[in-house]
Amino acid sequence: MSAGELPRFTPIGRLRTPFAALADCPRNTRALDPAPICRVEVAAGYAPGLKSLEGFSHLIILYWLDQAGGADLVFTPPFDPQPRGIFATRSPRRPNPIGLAVVELEGFEGPDTLLVRHLDCVDGTPLLDIKPYLRTTDAVPEARMGWLEPKERANRAP
Amino acid sequence: MSAGELPRFTPIGRLRTPFAALADCPRNTRALDPAPICRVEVAAGYAPGLKSLEGFSHLIILYWLDQAGGADLVFTPPFDPQPRGIFATRSPRRPNPIGLAVVELEGFEGPDTLLVRHLDCVDGTPLLDIKPYLRTTDAVPEARMGWLEPKERANRAP
Repeated sequence: MSAGELPRFTPIGRLRTPFAALADCPRNTRALDPAPICRVEVAAGYAPGLKSLEGFSHLIILYWLDQAGGADLVFTPPFDPQPRGIFATRSPRRPNPIGLAVVELEGFEGPDTLLVRHLDCVDGTPLLDIKPYLRTTDAVPEARMGWLEPKERANRAP
Repeated sequence: MSAGELPRFTPIGRLRTPFAALADCPRNTRALDPAPICRVEVAAGYAPGLKSLEGFSHLIILYWLDQAGGADLVFTPPFDPQPRGIFATRSPRRPNPIGLAVVELEGFEGPDTLLVRHLDCVDGTPLLDIKPYLRTTDAVPEARMGWLEPKERANRAP
């Protein structure tokens, strides 16, 4: 693959959250009650692409983890005694730092701004894509979570 | 944002599927029974990042839709009478053509190759990221699917 064939992506907007810096980002926004309202702002020209979103209760947001720093292929998470492969974690320090969040769509603030819950990234994070969440292909409530199973984690010595 | 700040992503492997061309890709791989086994091949050097994946039943695969062609912000899907915004669809013709699939992990074929079900992209599609699927944040079985609700589509005149 030549350099000319590398993917070229362009931010299409910004994510607005209450988290000013990486250190403020929650490890799990589902643990925040109430979950704060965040904003998905699309840049000028992209608003027509939001047409027909209003009937979806949930969306998938992809964004560029521009403050993640370099990648660690194997690292020991702070809450775990063992090294883990990056692809078995949701750490932002990935070879391609693309973040993913399943968010609840609360509504439109304007033609180019969505109100959502359950973003956990830094304020100002560049937006890459918005996809409708499809329970028919995206929801797997019985999925097993390997080393991240809550029971396994609770049973492990700190 | 200057050009120097644009996201720079690099394919980290390839997806191997039975679908040789776009026209062969199924609209919904969940409809294929049995779903074919596909391969996620990571490039040399990235295999250590797969450590600890073995306990997860499902993964999220992100890939570069390199054959998608240009973006349509608003378009009329072939099975729908109305124009829809691109962000309310899973069409590959997106401003940033990043594909997403929730796949079932069947196992390892080797240290750098995963066997999975439910990929629906063209054979050879460049891989961008592998994430563990977390039912605690990614599974929303009650999500409403707007204009893509099966009932709404069934009730609509062809």
